[in-house]
Amino acid sequence: MIIIGELINGTRKSIKEAIAARDADAIAELARKQAEAGADYIDCNPGTTGEQEVEDLVWLTQTVQAATDRPISFDSPNAQALRAALDVYEGLPPLINSISGEEGRLEAMLPLALDAGASVVALLIGGSQMPRDANERVEIGKRLVRALLDGGLKPEQVFIDPAVLSVGTEPTAGMEVLRAIAGMREAFPECHITAGLSNVSFGLPNRRLLNRTFLAMAVAYGLDSAIVDPLDRDLMAAVYAAEALVGRDEWCMNYIQAHREGLL
Amino acid sequence: MIIIGELINGTRKSIKEAIAARDADAIAELARKQAEAGADYIDCNPGTTGEQEVEDLVWLTQTVQAATDRPISFDSPNAQALRAALDVYEGLPPLINSISGEEGRLEAMLPLALDAGASVVALLIGGSQMPRDANERVEIGKRLVRALLDGGLKPEQVFIDPAVLSVGTEPTAGMEVLRAIAGMREAFPECHITAGLSNVSFGLPNRRLLNRTFLAMAVAYGLDSAIVDPLDRDLMAAVYAAEALVGRDEWCMNYIQAHREGLL
Repeated sequence: MIIIGELINGTRKSIKEAIAARDADAIAELARKQAEAGADYIDCNPGTTGEQEVEDLVWLTQTVQAATDRPISFDSPNAQALRAALDVYEGLPPLINSISGEEGRLEAMLPLALDAGASVVALLIGGSQMPRDANERVEIGKRLVRALLDGGLKPEQVFIDPAVLSVGTEPTAGMEVLRAIAGMREAFPECHITAGLSNVSFGLPNRRLLNRTFLAMAVAYGLDSAIVDPLDRDLMAAVYAAEALVGRDEWCMNYIQAHREGLL
Repeated sequence: MIIIGELINGTRKSIKEAIAARDADAIAELARKQAEAGADYIDCNPGTTGEQEVEDLVWLTQTVQAATDRPISFDSPNAQALRAALDVYEGLPPLINSISGEEGRLEAMLPLALDAGASVVALLIGGSQMPRDANERVEIGKRLVRALLDGGLKPEQVFIDPAVLSVGTEPTAGMEVLRAIAGMREAFPECHITAGLSNVSFGLPNRRLLNRTFLAMAVAYGLDSAIVDPLDRDLMAAVYAAEALVGRDEWCMNYIQAHREGLL
């Protein structure tokens, strides 16, 4: 399971303040903690726009790469900010989060990814509207992923993200995402499938319970990566359990090891 | 979700002793506690054989039905014990757990079920051997369920059980069961699908974590009943979460209610 640690996100109040105050210690600590907890990528979302976003993403990049050697997931739709951040980035091949089916987005961002040797999150959104169901997601996804592969990315550099919505506003939202995962897994067996799982519980109580329960379901449908809070121990325990249950952890060695280390 | 409470099982040491000592208070308390925790059926497995099983199952039946009005799940392959227990049973339509594809089992047990207006667990085992994979389970299942329906049961009286095995001994065991659930759900949309989930974790540490994680996966594949320990609060919380996530709990009303009652 490839874990993308989601905590450095400027739409969260404490992070917004830390970024505005250039509090490098706070950001560095959060990067380190996520890496120690098992994050394979450290997502960086400045949560700002325009010129400010360029400056903020560059600062986040410098701050995070000074704190950990885990690669960064650049979480911004702003090509100018991405370019500036990639210019100062010196780490392992990063992730660009995200390219969607939105008009012009692929054309602006794919060259940046190719230049940087970056992997890419392919978000299954066609235009400005969220997709309604599994079929719409798979249709958008097939077009988008084929364009990324034709454009020069390798299958293992593509992280398909089915665009998770809350079951609190749409009761079928969960199953449609699971069916989209199944459809994309079948169409692109060599690509990764990831998801911002916590969207599923937006507006509901006990979100962590819903998030880790949905994670288990999604893994059983083909998810092999997740954009999550790696400091959520119950969620990470569910990751170990889920991988053992679907046969991706042969003889349950990782699961048993995690148990011995007191992680379950 | 139809919960079959599994705790009154004579293969457990404390229950074996309570049955042997005719400790009605211990059994009655366990029946009541499971009913209060949400069990829809109270499974009764004497864990003995022959003449002893007949006496034990009759005593369990009398003891449990004096303690709760939840119907009993008669868990025995012994037609003689079942007949005797059904003779003293006066409650709501019970469940017979189980009929399998084993030679002669259907012929012996289906008439008892029809006489008693009982539902039936249809265990996807063909002979004395456990099925190897999903295809074998679905093959056995189609034959068995059709025979039950042709014999006079209504679809909603059939609880398909895919025969869960441990991922500790066979890494593919989990996915094969999930695929079997999907196959049977497609073939028999009106039947229930249940499972003795805890078998999945046999021989592994932190079994409850594996059991509730597998429950989430199985619900996403079509499970709508489970043979479980209803006193396991984390598992019951996962049931609420899973049903909300697959859209079986419209607007998450039950989930939110469970949250308010402190059950999550």
